[in-house]
Amino acid sequence: MIKIGVVDTTFSRVDMARYAIKVIQENLPEAKIIRYTVPGIKDIPVAARNLIMNEGCEAVITLGWVGAKQVDKYSYLAMSTGLIILQIMTGKHIIDVTVHEDEADNPDELLEIAKNRAMEHALNLVKLIRHGREALTRYAGQGLRQGRPDVGPLKM
Amino acid sequence: MIKIGVVDTTFSRVDMARYAIKVIQENLPEAKIIRYTVPGIKDIPVAARNLIMNEGCEAVITLGWVGAKQVDKYSYLAMSTGLIILQIMTGKHIIDVTVHEDEADNPDELLEIAKNRAMEHALNLVKLIRHGREALTRYAGQGLRQGRPDVGPLKM
Amino acid sequence: MIKIGVVDTTFSRVDMARYAIKVIQENLPEAKIIRYTVPGIKDIPVAARNLIMNEGCEAVITLGWVGAKQVDKYSYLAMSTGLIILQIMTGKHIIDVTVHEDEADNPDELLEIAKNRAMEHALNLVKLIRHGREALTRYAGQGLRQGRPDVGPLKM
Amino acid sequence: MIKIGVVDTTFSRVDMARYAIKVIQENLPEAKIIRYTVPGIKDIPVAARNLIMNEGCEAVITLGWVGAKQVDKYSYLAMSTGLIILQIMTGKHIIDVTVHEDEADNPDELLEIAKNRAMEHALNLVKLIRHGREALTRYAGQGLRQGRPDVGPLKM
Amino acid sequence: MIKIGVVDTTFSRVDMARYAIKVIQENLPEAKIIRYTVPGIKDIPVAARNLIMNEGCEAVITLGWVGAKQVDKYSYLAMSTGLIILQIMTGKHIIDVTVHEDEADNPDELLEIAKNRAMEHALNLVKLIRHGREALTRYAGQGLRQGRPDVGPLKM
Repeated sequence: MIKIGVVDTTFSRVDMARYAIKVIQENLPEAKIIRYTVPGIKDIPVAARNLIMNEGCEAVITLGWVGAKQVDKYSYLAMSTGLIILQIMTGKHIIDVTVHEDEADNPDELLEIAKNRAMEHALNLVKLIRHGREALTRYAGQGLRQGRPDVGPLKM
Repeated sequence: MIKIGVVDTTFSRVDMARYAIKVIQENLPEAKIIRYTVPGIKDIPVAARNLIMNEGCEAVITLGWVGAKQVDKYSYLAMSTGLIILQIMTGKHIIDVTVHEDEADNPDELLEIAKNRAMEHALNLVKLIRHGREALTRYAGQGLRQGRPDVGPLKM
Repeated sequence: MIKIGVVDTTFSRVDMARYAIKVIQENLPEAKIIRYTVPGIKDIPVAARNLIMNEGCEAVITLGWVGAKQVDKYSYLAMSTGLIILQIMTGKHIIDVTVHEDEADNPDELLEIAKNRAMEHALNLVKLIRHGREALTRYAGQGLRQGRPDVGPLKM
Repeated sequence: MIKIGVVDTTFSRVDMARYAIKVIQENLPEAKIIRYTVPGIKDIPVAARNLIMNEGCEAVITLGWVGAKQVDKYSYLAMSTGLIILQIMTGKHIIDVTVHEDEADNPDELLEIAKNRAMEHALNLVKLIRHGREALTRYAGQGLRQGRPDVGPLKM
Repeated sequence: MIKIGVVDTTFSRVDMARYAIKVIQENLPEAKIIRYTVPGIKDIPVAARNLIMNEGCEAVITLGWVGAKQVDKYSYLAMSTGLIILQIMTGKHIIDVTVHEDEADNPDELLEIAKNRAMEHALNLVKLIRHGREALTRYAGQGLRQGRPDVGPLKM
């Protein structure tokens, strides 16, 4: 049985894990999902670490929400650096879904971004787990976006 | 007996440790609290490291105060990166409470933020220690804030 | 047989791997190319890690595409730091080709930059693999650029 | 016999080590001071590393001087991150005294800041070495500053 | 026989290695110089790593050239962080000579800065190698600069 970790936060304004878990359950029904909720984004790396090293997860999806202030962006940078170092240490994919409070003016739009980004990245994770390093190669260079419409490839 | 580390600084303008310790003692009375005071935020990671590796703490809460200048924000970034790397190395939660000198104009407001943030994060730490990775899951995506009013989830 | 890793993303708006692979095949025909496609730039370091540590690649070329927003630049910084740490750990070259969405106004120009940068850096990689640490020494200080015209050395 | 490391630079415009060493000698007379001078702040971490790992120092004080340009601030960030990682690796305190060329307009004021900051942090180091993790706890939250007047705690 | 590594780039607009090597040969004639040329600054850390770990170099001088755009500055930060981590890992000095494309308007001035900075830092490296941790102590706090006139110490 394969274990997939899901990390989310109480800081987030959308329960993104619900959407991510739904996608994983539908597309990788044999997986066991192990969830870990932390206060905010700076707590995410240790949770991902424990899901991989203590719980035996094969991959993790993290669902972060970043405030609008400059110091929130530095927290984002520290979290991102940490998750990358953790992936280098373990060789496991940690798909890092992040929504920034200031990426949309409209709460409805922000909610849609959060839902779609969580679901689309959950599907990316499933594909990587199920089919490996060339699972996404057919989409390489195609200008895909998560949470917003794809922008597509530049025209030759 | 479980040991909980508390790191604070002489740079801080509020004795946040007092509030954090009170919450831990009331909600995790079996814990032994081990305190470590350092000059400023860049000294926090080594203190947290020694509390975990030398003193056997199961988790640490750090209480940092960050100046208003841009270089203070870079110090904040270095500290945050360090605490995240330390958590990845050890698998122990280090709840990183930070107050920024410039997040309120009014000293009274800043004092309230500092007290509340320290107390609310101490409670987060207790919950994670007592009930583990799903202790906070009921609050996932609920837009909780520490030190300020919760903003709540986006409306569906 | 020498193995060369190629990492690219679905976020990219140009299939840069196609151009890089063509150059490697023409100039290092004995190499086996192993490709790994990930969603975005923050997923690149773990892919490069797995190509080196699990697949036995002697070197890797990564093809990243960076958005125009400030947070995209922080993601770029986290990725770059991660790839440098990975190279220090393994001693293997990871030639990090990056195109920034905002480095040209014109889509045609951006496309040309992406193609040329991928091809020119693939050739750099081949030279380093084939001839070692002094392969590029004849070009040292010559103001070479990838994706744009060389600027040349400063005149004595 | 306890060994204390002192790292300074030729870039600095004040011989801060002189002041730091004087304080250490007066307050920790049994200590042997081992000095290491490097060109600039990016060379400080390896010097601190060698003082701890090769010379057996129990703690180190580093005396850095940072230029006014934005790239100097990035160098400061890299140095700070490095010193924090080194402290996490070794568990030894490295008190990181830094003066920024642009933190005062007046050379006399800058000189005073440099002298006082070096001396006050040297005393912090002595206290931590002599009395351990609670040596500074009586000053926790007291708004102490080094190199400038203390700002004091916020009033309750 | 002592081995000294020299890393440079094809991106650079001045053949700084030529000047650095000349100084090393004149002042440390018993040294064997091992050169490694890479495309750009983000490739420097792995080259320095290989010179130390594979070639047995006792110290390395790196000669980087940084573009004028903000993303070039982030590349500079990633490289600097990597070189500092590498020095902490190995205990070997890596003197990091960097010229920024935008630190002078005039190409002649930029050329002079590059030449002088490479030569003056090469001499720093020779002194550290030949005489150790106190080789530069007589210049501590003297406001030395490389590539530009010394600014001197602040007047007491």
